[in-house]
Amino acid sequence: MNIPLPLILVNFKAYSQGTGANALKIAKGADLVFKETGVNIGVAPVATDIRMISESVDVPVFAQHVDPIEPGSHTGFLTVEAVKEAGAIGSLVNHSEHRLRLADIDVCINNLRKAGLVSVVCTNNEIVSSAAAALNPDFIAIEPPELIGTGIPVSKAKPEVVTGSLEAVHKVNRNVIVLCGAGITTGDDVYAALKLGAQGVLLASGVVKAKNPFDVLMSMAEAVIKVEE
Amino acid sequence: MNIPLPLILVNFKAYSQGTGANALKIAKGADLVFKETGVNIGVAPVATDIRMISESVDVPVFAQHVDPIEPGSHTGFLTVEAVKEAGAIGSLVNHSEHRLRLADIDVCINNLRKAGLVSVVCTNNEIVSSAAAALNPDFIAIEPPELIGTGIPVSKAKPEVVTGSLEAVHKVNRNVIVLCGAGITTGDDVYAALKLGAQGVLLASGVVKAKNPFDVLMSMAEAVIKVEE
Amino acid sequence: MNIPLPLILVNFKAYSQGTGANALKIAKGADLVFKETGVNIGVAPVATDIRMISESVDVPVFAQHVDPIEPGSHTGFLTVEAVKEAGAIGSLVNHSEHRLRLADIDVCINNLRKAGLVSVVCTNNEIVSSAAAALNPDFIAIEPPELIGTGIPVSKAKPEVVTGSLEAVHKVNRNVIVLCGAGITTGDDVYAALKLGAQGVLLASGVVKAKNPFDVLMSMAEAVIKVEE
Amino acid sequence: MNIPLPLILVNFKAYSQGTGANALKIAKGADLVFKETGVNIGVAPVATDIRMISESVDVPVFAQHVDPIEPGSHTGFLTVEAVKEAGAIGSLVNHSEHRLRLADIDVCINNLRKAGLVSVVCTNNEIVSSAAAALNPDFIAIEPPELIGTGIPVSKAKPEVVTGSLEAVHKVNRNVIVLCGAGITTGDDVYAALKLGAQGVLLASGVVKAKNPFDVLMSMAEAVIKVEE
Repeated sequence: MNIPLPLILVNFKAYSQGTGANALKIAKGADLVFKETGVNIGVAPVATDIRMISESVDVPVFAQHVDPIEPGSHTGFLTVEAVKEAGAIGSLVNHSEHRLRLADIDVCINNLRKAGLVSVVCTNNEIVSSAAAALNPDFIAIEPPELIGTGIPVSKAKPEVVTGSLEAVHKVNRNVIVLCGAGITTGDDVYAALKLGAQGVLLASGVVKAKNPFDVLMSMAEAVIKVEE
Repeated sequence: MNIPLPLILVNFKAYSQGTGANALKIAKGADLVFKETGVNIGVAPVATDIRMISESVDVPVFAQHVDPIEPGSHTGFLTVEAVKEAGAIGSLVNHSEHRLRLADIDVCINNLRKAGLVSVVCTNNEIVSSAAAALNPDFIAIEPPELIGTGIPVSKAKPEVVTGSLEAVHKVNRNVIVLCGAGITTGDDVYAALKLGAQGVLLASGVVKAKNPFDVLMSMAEAVIKVEE
Repeated sequence: MNIPLPLILVNFKAYSQGTGANALKIAKGADLVFKETGVNIGVAPVATDIRMISESVDVPVFAQHVDPIEPGSHTGFLTVEAVKEAGAIGSLVNHSEHRLRLADIDVCINNLRKAGLVSVVCTNNEIVSSAAAALNPDFIAIEPPELIGTGIPVSKAKPEVVTGSLEAVHKVNRNVIVLCGAGITTGDDVYAALKLGAQGVLLASGVVKAKNPFDVLMSMAEAVIKVEE
Repeated sequence: MNIPLPLILVNFKAYSQGTGANALKIAKGADLVFKETGVNIGVAPVATDIRMISESVDVPVFAQHVDPIEPGSHTGFLTVEAVKEAGAIGSLVNHSEHRLRLADIDVCINNLRKAGLVSVVCTNNEIVSSAAAALNPDFIAIEPPELIGTGIPVSKAKPEVVTGSLEAVHKVNRNVIVLCGAGITTGDDVYAALKLGAQGVLLASGVVKAKNPFDVLMSMAEAVIKVEE
C-alpha cells in the first residue's frame, strides 16, 4: 500500500459532528480538497461509517482501531478483515484514547501488513516513539497527549518533541513515516509541522468540530503546497 | 421499540463466515425465512457491516457491542448514536466474549433506551441474571459460557439453568424478556428452549458456520411455529 | 465472619500518607479509638501492608481489592487466599477506582465467602446497588463517584441517594448491610449517615489525609456513640 | 541498584505453593542456596508477602507487578513506593500474564528507576524485545508464552529465540541485561540458557511447584558455577 505524502489524516473520533451523515459530509469535503489540490487527505471515521464513506470518496479511509485478534469468536471486536472488507486501507493503532498492550501493537501491525493495510501507530513521547519504531509500523504519529484537543499545536508548543521523535524513530528504523499531531487546527500549524520534518499530520477536532471543515482542510492543503514550493 | 416474539437472534461474532459479503448473504437468508414464516429473526453483524445489512433487509439488526460513552473524544469506540445512525435497533451488552463492568452495563442500557434502542444483556448464571434484571434491560440472554460454541444446547444440557434463570430474573423484574443461548444449533434446540419458557434464543456458530445457514434458520423458524401451535 | 456494627471503614487507597509506616500509624490510631470507645473501625491498606498491619492491631483489616481468580499462574494478581493468609478478614470489591465486570464481582463475592471473608461491594447509584444486592454480598457501600474526595458528604449533599439505595438494596436482599461513602470527613457526616439508616461509612482522604487521623476517627466514633444513645 | 549476575529469578505467581508460609519457605531455601554457593537468586512473591520475605532473607525480593501510577486515589493498585517500602528492590513489568500498554511500560520503568528500583520487562519475541529495549529497562526477560509452564525449556526448544532476542536487544540498547525464561526446570536448562548468552533466567513452576524447591535451586546454582568455570 503506497500512501502519497504528505498526508493530512483526520480522525473523526466518536464526535457527533463526525458520525453518520456528518461524517459523510466531511469526507466528501476532504475528497473535494484532494481533487482540487492533489494533497492527500485521509479520513478515519467510526467503524459503522467506514463502508459508506469508502464507497463515496476516493481519499483513503482508515479505521480508528482494530483489535489484536484473528477472525473467530470475538463478539463486538473488530478484525483487520472486517475493516478491509468495508474499504479501509489502514488503521490507527494505539491512539492515546485507546492504548494497547505492547505485544498487541505488534500483533495489530502484523495483521494489518498481512492484509495489505497500513498501520499508523500513535505515540506520546520520544522514547515510546523509538519503541514503536522497533515494531516496524508504516507510520508513527507522535501526539503529546496533554496537547490533544487543546488547539495548542505541538508544532509550535513543543517543536523539540517533533524533531526529537523524528530523530529517535529514524535512529531505530529509517523506513517509518512520521506524522505529528495534537493541537493542529490551522494551515499554519500544518506548515510548521512539515517544516520540522514531519511527513504529515494527524488531527481531529480542528477539522471535525470546525464550523466549516472544508475551509479548514483547504487551508491545510494550501499550507502543504506552500511547503513543497 | 417493540420486538415481535419469539426472537431468534443470530450473533455473527467476528467469524469470516459472518463478515462482509458473507454477512449480507446470511442476513438476506434470515430476511427470507422471516418473510416466509413470519418468525422474527434478528441479526447482529460486526460494526462495519451494520449499515450495509440494515439497508438490505427488513429483519431487525443489532450491534454486538456498544461502548459506555457519550459522543466525544473516544477514538475507536462505538457510541449508541453511531450504531443507531447505521440502522441498528438494539445491541448485545456484556456478551461472554466482551464482559463489561457492572456500572458500565447500567450506562449502556440507559444510553440505548434514551436513543430508543433495545438492550440484550448476556449473563452466565442465575445469580448474575438476577443482578442484570435489576438493571432493567429489555432482554436478558442467559448463556452458560462453558456451552458456547460446543453444539451442546443449554436447553438440553442444563435446562435447570434456563428455568432457574427465568425464575430468578422475573422475581426481580417482571418486564424483562429472557432468551437462552449456548450450544443452540437445531430446530429441536430452539423448540426445547421455548418449551422451557424462554421467549427466544441467542445463537452464533450454529447458523453462521453452518453449511447452509438458510436451512438451519428455516428449521428453527418451523420449530417456533410448532411451539406456538 | 461477624463484623460488629456500625462500622467505620477507612480505605487507605494508594496515598503516601496511608502507605508503609504511615499506614501502620493510622491503623494503630484506629485500634486505639476502638479500644477506647468500642466503636468498630476497619482499615483497608494497600496489599503490601496488610500483613504488617494485621499483626499489629486488633481492628479488622480489609484488602482494597482481590482479583477474580483461583490460585495459579496469575503473575501480579491477588487471590483471596493471599490476602487471607496475610490477615485480611474481607475485601472491598468494585471500588469506583477499580471497577469490575459484573460476572467477576459474582466470582469475588463467592471466593471471599468460601474462604470465610466478607465482601464490601461498592456501587454508584440506586439501580446498580440493587443489582449488587442480587449478587448477595455481605456489605454494599454506596458512593456517588462525583462526591468521592470532595469533602462534600453524601449524607448531606445527596441524602436521597443513601435512603433510596438502602430501600433498593433491601427490596432485593434483606441480608445486605449498607454503608455509605463519598465526602465523609467529620463526625457530623458520620452521624448524618447513620441517621439516614446506613450501618456504617466508607471513607478515605477524610482520615488518611487529615492532619491528625486519630482525632478525626475519635470524633467519628463519638458520633456513632451519639447515634446509639 | 547493582544486581550481581547471573541472576536466577523465581516468580512465585499466585500459586498456593508460593503464597504465605509456603512462600517464606521457598525464599529461605533460595537464601540458603545463595549463602552456600554465592549464586544470586531473586524471589518475586505476591504483593502481600513482599515485606515478610524481605525482612527474612538477604536475597533480592522483586514485586511481580507495579501499576503505572503515582501515589494517590488508586484503590487496590500498587505504587512503586508501596513495594519499595515493603522491601522490594525491583519489579517484573509486563509479564505475559499481566501485559501492559506500551506507554504504561515506559511509566513503570521510569517510576521504578526514580525510586532506585530495577525493572525486569518481560517480552514474547524478538521484535517486541527490541521495542522494550528502546524503553531502556534494566532487564529484559524474553519468554515465549507458548512455552511458559510447559517444562520444555526455551533454551533447548527455541535457542534461536534466545540468541535472536539477545542480538535484537543489544542492537537497540547495549545496557540492557537479558534473562531468558519459559520452561526452565533444571540445572541443565539454566546451563543451556547461560551458554546461549543470557545473563540469567526467569522461572516459576519449575521451582515453586517442585517437590523440593531447595534441591532444584541448588542444582541451578551449581549449573551457574559450572558455566563460570
